[in-house]
Amino acid sequence: MFLNCDLGESFGAWTMGLDAEVMPYIDQANVATGFHAGDPMVIQHTLRLARQHDVTVGAHPAYPDLVGFGRRSMACSRDEIIAKIHYQVAAMDGMASVAGLELRYVKPHGALYNDMMAKEDVRLAILEALAEYHRPLALMMQATPEVEQHRKEADTAGIEVWFEAFADRCYADDGKLLSRRLEGAMHSRDKMLAQVAQLCEKGTVTTISGIELPVAADTLCVHGDNAEGVAAIRDIRALVDKTAESAAG
Amino acid sequence: MFLNCDLGESFGAWTMGLDAEVMPYIDQANVATGFHAGDPMVIQHTLRLARQHDVTVGAHPAYPDLVGFGRRSMACSRDEIIAKIHYQVAAMDGMASVAGLELRYVKPHGALYNDMMAKEDVRLAILEALAEYHRPLALMMQATPEVEQHRKEADTAGIEVWFEAFADRCYADDGKLLSRRLEGAMHSRDKMLAQVAQLCEKGTVTTISGIELPVAADTLCVHGDNAEGVAAIRDIRALVDKTAESAAG
Amino acid sequence: MFLNCDLGESFGAWTMGLDAEVMPYIDQANVATGFHAGDPMVIQHTLRLARQHDVTVGAHPAYPDLVGFGRRSMACSRDEIIAKIHYQVAAMDGMASVAGLELRYVKPHGALYNDMMAKEDVRLAILEALAEYHRPLALMMQATPEVEQHRKEADTAGIEVWFEAFADRCYADDGKLLSRRLEGAMHSRDKMLAQVAQLCEKGTVTTISGIELPVAADTLCVHGDNAEGVAAIRDIRALVDKTAESAAG
Amino acid sequence: MFLNCDLGESFGAWTMGLDAEVMPYIDQANVATGFHAGDPMVIQHTLRLARQHDVTVGAHPAYPDLVGFGRRSMACSRDEIIAKIHYQVAAMDGMASVAGLELRYVKPHGALYNDMMAKEDVRLAILEALAEYHRPLALMMQATPEVEQHRKEADTAGIEVWFEAFADRCYADDGKLLSRRLEGAMHSRDKMLAQVAQLCEKGTVTTISGIELPVAADTLCVHGDNAEGVAAIRDIRALVDKTAESAAG
Repeated sequence: MFLNCDLGESFGAWTMGLDAEVMPYIDQANVATGFHAGDPMVIQHTLRLARQHDVTVGAHPAYPDLVGFGRRSMACSRDEIIAKIHYQVAAMDGMASVAGLELRYVKPHGALYNDMMAKEDVRLAILEALAEYHRPLALMMQATPEVEQHRKEADTAGIEVWFEAFADRCYADDGKLLSRRLEGAMHSRDKMLAQVAQLCEKGTVTTISGIELPVAADTLCVHGDNAEGVAAIRDIRALVDKTAESAAG
Repeated sequence: MFLNCDLGESFGAWTMGLDAEVMPYIDQANVATGFHAGDPMVIQHTLRLARQHDVTVGAHPAYPDLVGFGRRSMACSRDEIIAKIHYQVAAMDGMASVAGLELRYVKPHGALYNDMMAKEDVRLAILEALAEYHRPLALMMQATPEVEQHRKEADTAGIEVWFEAFADRCYADDGKLLSRRLEGAMHSRDKMLAQVAQLCEKGTVTTISGIELPVAADTLCVHGDNAEGVAAIRDIRALVDKTAESAAG
Repeated sequence: MFLNCDLGESFGAWTMGLDAEVMPYIDQANVATGFHAGDPMVIQHTLRLARQHDVTVGAHPAYPDLVGFGRRSMACSRDEIIAKIHYQVAAMDGMASVAGLELRYVKPHGALYNDMMAKEDVRLAILEALAEYHRPLALMMQATPEVEQHRKEADTAGIEVWFEAFADRCYADDGKLLSRRLEGAMHSRDKMLAQVAQLCEKGTVTTISGIELPVAADTLCVHGDNAEGVAAIRDIRALVDKTAESAAG
Repeated sequence: MFLNCDLGESFGAWTMGLDAEVMPYIDQANVATGFHAGDPMVIQHTLRLARQHDVTVGAHPAYPDLVGFGRRSMACSRDEIIAKIHYQVAAMDGMASVAGLELRYVKPHGALYNDMMAKEDVRLAILEALAEYHRPLALMMQATPEVEQHRKEADTAGIEVWFEAFADRCYADDGKLLSRRLEGAMHSRDKMLAQVAQLCEKGTVTTISGIELPVAADTLCVHGDNAEGVAAIRDIRALVDKTAESAAG
């Protein structure tokens, strides 16, 4: 089980996230590409940090919405989605090469991620964008009950998929995340660690109403926005490593 | 002698330049990278057009100034210039690969080009950016009396330089372009063709006061903003081809 | 019956619309506020032109989407819509005062206009924004079969509404515009003039299937994007003036 | 002696400055207008906060450079400067009215401020912009040895000037601020309070080499970027109030 985290979300004079404190504990850095956050200097700095800590880098493309942080769905055509992803992924790909890294995957950000999970046309446009790209990149998606359907779509496009689960979010009975507007949506630290342990050991989560659902995840999404988040990442890292050792032992 | 032209300068709903009419007559397309003009869909369209007409593509990076079309000098640090060039060049590089092309060179745009020619620190920052890039790209610069100095700087950085001359602009006695604010700055069609012929045959230009100066250019910058510009490009193309044939014959 | 037209849609180095040719023939200029088109210099120029031709000016606010020309719906909260409208309207209001004009109305642009017509929450947010504004401004909306409902909502908010009809678009049987994707959506010149005459004389349109529907419009939306559009505006102007004279006579 | 502070410098999802903690201790809020920082929602929030604490509001316009935070000089023409200031000031003016406040002054930000102090053409363009504005607004400038020259220029334009001094910056012998790159440029807390006391009581500062220079300031610029800055503001507030009481007593 790997840990992935959104990084490089500063912009110009504005700082966001404790990138330097998070990087040592994660495996995969989703680096913002400049459309919702990040700028060339932030990207350069983030990639160098990833290299220093031997972290795998992915591009984190978004709708072009800086003031909205890419969190608002925008009705883009298939062609627009493909062109925007090519531009953002290519910028990150080349800058990763300059930094001595190889870009390995793409994880859409915010509303583009949500639209990918909810709308077939957006998902197929993203897969098409990666299929047209001149070298292979994996796509990071959420592990949901539609995981087999999504894998089939990706196979058809010839794209490898990495599925992710969430450490700190409570799951609804339909296998999706409980809306943040609902009580119990965010786990306490104990529940978070219990969910991580269960994901690692049994490949399941226990939903809000107590049902145990299979969630076959390759990677866990963690958040390093503040000191509390960084502390949680450290705990999750230790737990995941311990579980891996037990399994290996 | 090649012909190069700035293309892909449309943006969103706004159209600029007669790209489809210019592309068949040029050798090198300087494609806007999105900082002063161009957007992912415009870039994609321009690259496809270049491929169709077998035109060599270069990235045309700029200061981040959409409303000013990159024409205003911005006081950027060396690190900012390097990071901004990496981002823009990488975006174009990857999108060129997707289009089945290989990006070959970089020509800075507008105020960044002017600053490159006038300020050593900007020029060295640009050379450094290309030296750090993970694969070789040539730099397009203006052929001026400093051509040997500029070649030396580029050699030190390990960068190939392509020097360009201007077809439609009158040269001052110092080998630079006569300011557009001065009378006679823009050539009539006859003078333009005479200047092109002289550049091709003798490698010189005749300045505003009648002095003949050496201008060792590899490529000619032409402009396709309107129907008149396109007609001029066609004439220059025919003239350059005829001169090449004579030389070959 | 007045004529309104979207103007000031150039941006930086990019020109759009034949503003100088359109302005003499219209009554109301919907001036872009910088979020989808327009910039401070374009706004200044457009307002001066309006003043010269004694044209009433309105603000034409949009979603913040320059590359998409404000044509893509963006999921904004009520508070965001209100704040964005205040900013854009205030910028235009003050610049109009500087130009010796008084801003009279607001017409949302593109996707914001469509969302206003289709979604009650967006419409109420826009009305709320105008109600909170420190001086009265009218709202321009489309005259549809919901005209009474919309008038009631506006009355509740204390906002005057100006309803508009479209000269060159064919109406569907539900009183809305026929989708541009369908055949017959755009009128020929003769049909356009017939529709204008009918709107002026009888306050009705004849729909795609031949039904006569009441459309109580205060103003007609016309388009000056190209020479053909300008010619159409001149014809409509002449027709509207003639109808007004007949009515007066 | 008043205290002024740059506020409203957050943008979208990015937070900057401790606005809520600073507002109770200052007299004048320089509110970012969206070109270097701030967005409609941030502006709205900042104005409401100013109203709550009865703080005078000014517009803080800048060059259009979000990623550079308006800190890079941009070569803009006189007309561009005027139009950009009108747009930004008008947006703030109207939004202030919506918030129940009256915009009173303009303080250019960052590189635009520096250019105003250093370049006569920029300064005159700014004065011209305010002179053309439809209602009177004061201009906030730095109190330097050129104060009489600047006052004359402003008088000619019919503009009231408010001169400011800096609490935490050491002055050079020429009456300008010592460059931040030089040692001793930023005062310790004790030196800062001593400088404030001297400015209030004697209208002078002691420069880096010990010379006492007259600095006739109406207002002191303070900074609330972090907890330390807020603590300094509180100390300065107490000191200024005490000095005023002594003077009144």
